[in-house]
Amino acid sequence: MPSFDPMRAVAVTRQIRDQAAAATSDDFVAVEEPLEIRVHGRSLAVVMRTPGNDRELVAGFLWSEGLIRHREDVLDFVYCGEDENGPRENVIDAHLAPNVILDWKRLTRHTFASSSCGLCGKASIDAVRQLFPPITSKASFAPRASLIASLPEKLRVAQRTFSLTGGLHASGLFNLAGELLAVREDVGRHNALDKVIGRAFFTEQLPLDQTILLVSGRVSFELMQKALAAGIPVVAAISAPTSLAVDFARESGQTLVGFVRGERMNVYAGTLTG
Amino acid sequence: MPSFDPMRAVAVTRQIRDQAAAATSDDFVAVEEPLEIRVHGRSLAVVMRTPGNDRELVAGFLWSEGLIRHREDVLDFVYCGEDENGPRENVIDAHLAPNVILDWKRLTRHTFASSSCGLCGKASIDAVRQLFPPITSKASFAPRASLIASLPEKLRVAQRTFSLTGGLHASGLFNLAGELLAVREDVGRHNALDKVIGRAFFTEQLPLDQTILLVSGRVSFELMQKALAAGIPVVAAISAPTSLAVDFARESGQTLVGFVRGERMNVYAGTLTG
Repeated sequence: MPSFDPMRAVAVTRQIRDQAAAATSDDFVAVEEPLEIRVHGRSLAVVMRTPGNDRELVAGFLWSEGLIRHREDVLDFVYCGEDENGPRENVIDAHLAPNVILDWKRLTRHTFASSSCGLCGKASIDAVRQLFPPITSKASFAPRASLIASLPEKLRVAQRTFSLTGGLHASGLFNLAGELLAVREDVGRHNALDKVIGRAFFTEQLPLDQTILLVSGRVSFELMQKALAAGIPVVAAISAPTSLAVDFARESGQTLVGFVRGERMNVYAGTLTG
Repeated sequence: MPSFDPMRAVAVTRQIRDQAAAATSDDFVAVEEPLEIRVHGRSLAVVMRTPGNDRELVAGFLWSEGLIRHREDVLDFVYCGEDENGPRENVIDAHLAPNVILDWKRLTRHTFASSSCGLCGKASIDAVRQLFPPITSKASFAPRASLIASLPEKLRVAQRTFSLTGGLHASGLFNLAGELLAVREDVGRHNALDKVIGRAFFTEQLPLDQTILLVSGRVSFELMQKALAAGIPVVAAISAPTSLAVDFARESGQTLVGFVRGERMNVYAGTLTG
């Protein structure tokens, strides 16, 4: 039976240069397990994730792919072999409403594959922007820099596992007053965000147009894409963004702040209030 | 035309809490661009990667998938639209020897998808181990802890881009004397390793059974899988491994060392000489 805990104790030998090995002790590592996502019994993807909030992960994944757009699109998410004792396997089958259109060709993670010779970052951005509208000026706002600077400490306090394993990425969702609405952790940074989005899907809070997202690490194109899919107008990160994350934020009207450390931060797209 | 530089200058506003915004200046970010990998003209995958050493990336990717096993399996890797001025597009078509067997079903990144209800970490490990042999006792060795402790500084010195952008993962390959053989950087940690493996593919140095791999971040299942595919017996990391990385290392006879920081390190699988 697979593990459904976010961390696990493993035997570890703590070694110090030029000294005989110390005795073996236990250390916690972040659990990584495959999750197969099926739709109507057909395999859509296998993601390596940290168990926990799996239904949120599936909902956020399907939302970001543009497959589900309303709460009523989802009839149920069912674990294979699930019974009264809970899930037994790392397989979830999504039962969607009959009116949901399943374009399998588009869903095979080759979304950005071009039929001709051309493929570039701009094409990737355009493919996503065809699915999701940009942030409108009505939804955009300029948070205070001091508010952004206060978020990392709140995320750290809320992270249950990171301090023990050092191995989990976190996504924290905040309201405009800087209050933490949700935090999710995962070995995959995109999974942590999918879980945050999936939670909002089930509570019918999408789009998240009055929120700020803080991620514990770096910001890639894929994270900005998922944030836009959820309507999140401001993304802040402890570490660096990539070039395509910056380009995407600028084209989609999102605010992107990186290297939020202490009193300082870098604003790559949009503006903050000083 | 897409960028083929590993980093790019972007305008950034450096903001400090409760102060008016400083003037905008330039900062370097790691370039992230899509690369479509085709085999005989058919799209196999789109990876988000940092441009540079793309043919190595494709070779390492195809090697890790078990698709190519000998140097002569590859006739050529050709960029779409490539001419005497170099590559024009982020699309590479792999021309393989006629005798290479293309099992498209297995190659669609659903490698671990199960046909029945069961899916767990153990099944993922077994699926990989069917493709690649474990490290034999002949190839295994126990490096000195002091040698492992000396590697991070050598990797940092060799990284050209990281210190400027903070946004790239690095994979460094060392010989048993602790000398750096190769270093590759990428926004994707698995891409950096694919490039290291692809380099060894082209120089016909696979399997890398007398080497040590050091990665700049965390270690996932996928990294251990790629290391085994290349025959690398010892993997060290600056940060944490996941549970499945530890399980995989133990089952495949690899040595896995995490949190290599200063004089200290944690040994999760295999043994070091004290």
